[in-house]
Amino acid sequence: MKKDNVISILSENMKELRMKANITQEELSFRSGLHRNYISDTERGTRNISIKAVEKIAQGLEVPVEDLFVNKNK
Amino acid sequence: MKKDNVISILSENMKELRMKANITQEELSFRSGLHRNYISDTERGTRNISIKAVEKIAQGLEVPVEDLFVNKNK
Repeated sequence: MKKDNVISILSENMKELRMKANITQEELSFRSGLHRNYISDTERGTRNISIKAVEKIAQGLEVPVEDLFVNKNK
Repeated sequence: MKKDNVISILSENMKELRMKANITQEELSFRSGLHRNYISDTERGTRNISIKAVEKIAQGLEVPVEDLFVNKNK
């Protein structure tokens, strides 16, 4: 079931944008400078990360930060 | 000088949206359930806050989370 909270929204957008970029979690980890477990947890929606970490993920995905927070379930 | 990093972007948008809502930092603190110093620091761009905290601020301002991350300097 899709959820309407910020952690779930980030999780879904991150996965979708990573798939679109056609890169693995390992590659995103390398590009963003974040640990692979950190990437994996965030994509599963089990972490309340900081906005600086979100910025690194956005840079790794080459998207603006706001794209990671768009709520597509509204 | 305007900066292009996520903390500055959040800081500027938060201030602008709070002014638009015509509420004080104290009122936003009450509405979001975050301490007034926390609101003040975030608006000054001196804190790397979590995404759950951003969600509370967005709820207090009655805006979608993504509105707080739009980069208007691009």
